[in-house]
Amino acid sequence: MIDIDGVSHIGIVVPDLEAACVFFADKFGCPVGEPIDVPGQALRLAYVVVGPVKIELLTPTAPNSAIARFLDRNPKGGLHHVAFSVVDAQVAADASLGAGLQIIGGVPQPGHHGRPLFFLHPKDTLGALFEIEQREGAQDRSPTGQRRNDAKA
Amino acid sequence: MIDIDGVSHIGIVVPDLEAACVFFADKFGCPVGEPIDVPGQALRLAYVVVGPVKIELLTPTAPNSAIARFLDRNPKGGLHHVAFSVVDAQVAADASLGAGLQIIGGVPQPGHHGRPLFFLHPKDTLGALFEIEQREGAQDRSPTGQRRNDAKA
Repeated sequence: MIDIDGVSHIGIVVPDLEAACVFFADKFGCPVGEPIDVPGQALRLAYVVVGPVKIELLTPTAPNSAIARFLDRNPKGGLHHVAFSVVDAQVAADASLGAGLQIIGGVPQPGHHGRPLFFLHPKDTLGALFEIEQREGAQDRSPTGQRRNDAKA
Repeated sequence: MIDIDGVSHIGIVVPDLEAACVFFADKFGCPVGEPIDVPGQALRLAYVVVGPVKIELLTPTAPNSAIARFLDRNPKGGLHHVAFSVVDAQVAADASLGAGLQIIGGVPQPGHHGRPLFFLHPKDTLGALFEIEQREGAQDRSPTGQRRNDAKA
């Protein structure tokens, strides 16, 4: 069993990140963070704060990425994924595999924030794309993160 | 400005409601509510509790409804909408119209729970379908709800 304890964020792919940030600030009065480039995934993102949940606005920075292909299919943008939080991403990954759910890319990877996360294949999860993300403040036990935590200690 | 204060739920359309309920209970250990029939919208739904946010699982009970058409386009199901909570749906509806956002159906309608809610047209909202839902415990000031609240008092 994958022990999710909340919704971390909801990913929305948009064709114009700046316009989307202005939209949430102007229409809903939400705090919007500075855009963050994630070159490893050929995307640029910004977080919108809606109470305890964030909206993750995503736009591609190169063609043929997963986000670019989503935008090709949905030129106006649209709902892309839901991220659930867990205390330990590696434990959740082991539990996912044990539950017969396929992990895209096989293992948790560090996100732009350094915390490990992974995506479950939507064929196993009701047609919806679910991200499993280690929550802030939780100990990172992944091979990559272990070194990071050790370095901090 | 529409004064949203949180994410109430995330709507996921599924082809098989019972299987989807079992999925969330078995794979994630989430509490899952009893299915609720909403004949006025030709759908059946169930809520899954994930911390303070709910997943609203939706399946059509008749062809040609909005949910049935979504499932026609996405036979395996998929992310359908995000519901934001507000204190007062009528105030939020007025603010939406003032902000140039189109309300599907024009005015808030009572949901199956009796609280007023409305959907914004996704052409105005980043291609994503946003529901605006009056939060539990808030006073219902809509013409329909006023009678209901009066009757309870």
